[in-house]
Amino acid sequence: MVIVIQCKDRIGLVALISGVLAKHSINILSMREFVDTSASVFFARLVVDAHEHAADLQEALKIVLPEDASIKVNPNPVKKVILLVTKEYHCLSDILIRNHFKTLGASVEAVIGNHPDLANICQRFEVPFHFINHEGKDKLAFEEEIKQQIHQYHFDYLILAKFMRILSPTFIADFPDRIINIHHSFLPAFIGASPYRQAFNRGVKLIGATAHFVTNQLDEGPIIAQQTIPVNHTFSVADMVKAGKEIEKAVLIKAIQLVFDDRVFVLDNKTVVFD
Amino acid sequence: MVIVIQCKDRIGLVALISGVLAKHSINILSMREFVDTSASVFFARLVVDAHEHAADLQEALKIVLPEDASIKVNPNPVKKVILLVTKEYHCLSDILIRNHFKTLGASVEAVIGNHPDLANICQRFEVPFHFINHEGKDKLAFEEEIKQQIHQYHFDYLILAKFMRILSPTFIADFPDRIINIHHSFLPAFIGASPYRQAFNRGVKLIGATAHFVTNQLDEGPIIAQQTIPVNHTFSVADMVKAGKEIEKAVLIKAIQLVFDDRVFVLDNKTVVFD
Amino acid sequence: MVIVIQCKDRIGLVALISGVLAKHSINILSMREFVDTSASVFFARLVVDAHEHAADLQEALKIVLPEDASIKVNPNPVKKVILLVTKEYHCLSDILIRNHFKTLGASVEAVIGNHPDLANICQRFEVPFHFINHEGKDKLAFEEEIKQQIHQYHFDYLILAKFMRILSPTFIADFPDRIINIHHSFLPAFIGASPYRQAFNRGVKLIGATAHFVTNQLDEGPIIAQQTIPVNHTFSVADMVKAGKEIEKAVLIKAIQLVFDDRVFVLDNKTVVFD
Amino acid sequence: MVIVIQCKDRIGLVALISGVLAKHSINILSMREFVDTSASVFFARLVVDAHEHAADLQEALKIVLPEDASIKVNPNPVKKVILLVTKEYHCLSDILIRNHFKTLGASVEAVIGNHPDLANICQRFEVPFHFINHEGKDKLAFEEEIKQQIHQYHFDYLILAKFMRILSPTFIADFPDRIINIHHSFLPAFIGASPYRQAFNRGVKLIGATAHFVTNQLDEGPIIAQQTIPVNHTFSVADMVKAGKEIEKAVLIKAIQLVFDDRVFVLDNKTVVFD
Repeated sequence: MVIVIQCKDRIGLVALISGVLAKHSINILSMREFVDTSASVFFARLVVDAHEHAADLQEALKIVLPEDASIKVNPNPVKKVILLVTKEYHCLSDILIRNHFKTLGASVEAVIGNHPDLANICQRFEVPFHFINHEGKDKLAFEEEIKQQIHQYHFDYLILAKFMRILSPTFIADFPDRIINIHHSFLPAFIGASPYRQAFNRGVKLIGATAHFVTNQLDEGPIIAQQTIPVNHTFSVADMVKAGKEIEKAVLIKAIQLVFDDRVFVLDNKTVVFD
Repeated sequence: MVIVIQCKDRIGLVALISGVLAKHSINILSMREFVDTSASVFFARLVVDAHEHAADLQEALKIVLPEDASIKVNPNPVKKVILLVTKEYHCLSDILIRNHFKTLGASVEAVIGNHPDLANICQRFEVPFHFINHEGKDKLAFEEEIKQQIHQYHFDYLILAKFMRILSPTFIADFPDRIINIHHSFLPAFIGASPYRQAFNRGVKLIGATAHFVTNQLDEGPIIAQQTIPVNHTFSVADMVKAGKEIEKAVLIKAIQLVFDDRVFVLDNKTVVFD
Repeated sequence: MVIVIQCKDRIGLVALISGVLAKHSINILSMREFVDTSASVFFARLVVDAHEHAADLQEALKIVLPEDASIKVNPNPVKKVILLVTKEYHCLSDILIRNHFKTLGASVEAVIGNHPDLANICQRFEVPFHFINHEGKDKLAFEEEIKQQIHQYHFDYLILAKFMRILSPTFIADFPDRIINIHHSFLPAFIGASPYRQAFNRGVKLIGATAHFVTNQLDEGPIIAQQTIPVNHTFSVADMVKAGKEIEKAVLIKAIQLVFDDRVFVLDNKTVVFD
Repeated sequence: MVIVIQCKDRIGLVALISGVLAKHSINILSMREFVDTSASVFFARLVVDAHEHAADLQEALKIVLPEDASIKVNPNPVKKVILLVTKEYHCLSDILIRNHFKTLGASVEAVIGNHPDLANICQRFEVPFHFINHEGKDKLAFEEEIKQQIHQYHFDYLILAKFMRILSPTFIADFPDRIINIHHSFLPAFIGASPYRQAFNRGVKLIGATAHFVTNQLDEGPIIAQQTIPVNHTFSVADMVKAGKEIEKAVLIKAIQLVFDDRVFVLDNKTVVFD
């Protein structure tokens, strides 16, 4: 059973938490704790050997911990997610395969595409696909349609699996720390459009990808995971795009599995990741 | 201030430890805890914001924790080490440079060489070098001479920085978990002599290095750190040796700095590393 | 257009090859040449800007080059492959996805499974799946059935995408340098069964995967690609298996795409890879 | 013997080069050729088995190749270099050690420091150190003093081994493609001052280093090598600086050894690296 706690830091928090667990004769199998001293915020993730009802334990912890504490005991171990996509199949397919074989650590409830291209692959895996055309309507109307579709479902996270539209601040504000994007560069290098073209022109020897929570600062949200791979003078822009897809896929999967596993905490524009 | 604790696992250990700290109004800035459930052993490393006397805290923890607990409060932050070398300069020099500029996290008390080749580089850094010839004497006599030299010094660890002699079980038994070796292969591949020749003959695409504590099982001691780097068909054995030196140096430094930082625990033939 | 040549080395081979190309006014866009001096074997791969008929160029090169030269001009750019699998889906699915979206660099003609488990995923992508049970028959009979199935198809390579049966020398001899396997360890570490169990018991800090051509020396064939990833004390055997799947998939894809791209040459138990 | 050639591309260059070699009965042991098709520039590096006089071969190649061709036959295998430093010891020391043990692939003629701090380490290795204070004088006067010192020596390259002054366009123009810098970030991320502080504030999960030729576009010169390493939420700015030093050192060494080995070609703001 996993327990995650985030709150304003103060002396004695670990003693309070572990005191409750000891009183319930619950062993702590592994624990990570970290205090961001500049913001004075406390983060903890515990794996415990418990057979209690999670709700009882949650209640017991709530009683002793400060009121501002976010406490999750045994958070839903299979998160529900909705994917937003455009035309590129590589991230989506990798997620659909894992979803199909039940190794994603989450359940894909639906896929929304602003192009119809990826409907077919979703059908092959019997995952609902909703085509919502962004053309001929303003962003507000487009996003309203998205909202209508997604609100049919229960979901924990929206995953932008190469969704090539920029979401409005209003939309984003509705889902704080719940939208995860894969950006096709090693942020903050090559912010904005055509990062591989930019990388090619600059003659870099590495390209990268960045998975992050989406905030209203474009490409500035809290970073969850990043990775780079080598490129060289023989790489055209197209070769970089191709190589980049491999790493985009790898970084997005790594990031969302950390999130699904309740290993990622957000504080302002940064994350704490107990990997 | 760092606190490290290792003992037989039981329920409530974290509560006991954090209870003592809370009573002393000491904040826990970061904490890693892990239980090896098959062996039922508890490991913890805490970084705390304390201005107490370490000895008092040590005493307070000793009172509440089980008798078998190994407790170190504020373990000597600058470890003392003795290096054993043969002819290769790369690991030794890297350590001497860091020692000279006081960024090693340890203090090099002396260097023992079974060849005189590295005396000169030690002199340049005013580090005592003792040449102990292994030729014309049996291992016992050779090791006796080493012991006489090293017992002039206080030291926490013996570091085999490319020391090309195999130490006897008797010698090793005198320094349990205190001898660290760098092996020039990705163990357990290519155990024994000439690992790069073996790697070349096998046509591998990666070579590696392994830093480990030395036990009486040759090349079988608890592994602290490992790393690999790519090689290809253009690499001769000599090229592999050259590339290997870079990684041997990197892995040894990484491993010993983890040890100096009290992040490494030993359990049988394995390590727990809170990196 | 790609040209690959392998032959006994002698002085002047590059002059002969480039002479033919110059005479046909063909520009060499990129070229890799390598001589294994111990075996005295010449390898070359050229990318040329040619609009000739490949057959004419092949003929022109054949005339000037030594008789023993293996010359391929514009080798079939979309290789045909047959996959052999058992129960694990991760390598197979990754290949099926790329095959479906035509980014594999090859065409999957069929999948043979010695268990029926993966029939369903193949059906979803309309790839023929043949279940050939190995139970209740000897290896010879089992392999005879495989041969009957695969000989229905034209194919360049057999890919063992986590096929958990050991093929007989007779079978292997029929397909020299045409069978590619993914081994779930960093060879030559942990040869044989249960490499992750072995890795766990040894307490390694990296695990790896190896893609290699299959020869009659079990786990000893020419290595095409290898990769490692970090593990630590928190990894159970099951966690290592899970992490290993990611790297098995990545290494197999990397290796087969190098092969499909005519970048891999075999010499005895080694490869030359112009990556 | 190494031969490197760079010139305007045209059909038949490889035939011309290899024709000369064949006529002299010289075997090509390995060859890399690449054409930048957008700029139409030809690059080649050959390792040949020759016992001729390099000058004769150079002459023979010069006769057949276009006039604009830059041809180097057996370029000085031990380059001469001068290092410019400020206060940080890590890159300098690593170079001095290799220089001392004759494994640098170059010879360090002198070190220039705008602070006196690193004089001592140079003295330990008997390498001339010149302290040239930048304080109290304008950039022109400061650089004039540097020029006077370095012109005492023959040198192929100036290496900025953590030299924290920006050189003027005039100075740089005097040494085209001969000044190599190590920048403490993964360019183009975090251009300018305090990249680790910037990285910390952004919450990145990787930090990097970039070795590049210096041009008049600050931090925009042709990149030779780049590398990244993981960081996490526990890293303070100081921790990032410390981790960064390891990678700065590694990237600078890798880059300069590629240059010393005549594997790096410059074209506009990019490099071709035959590694």
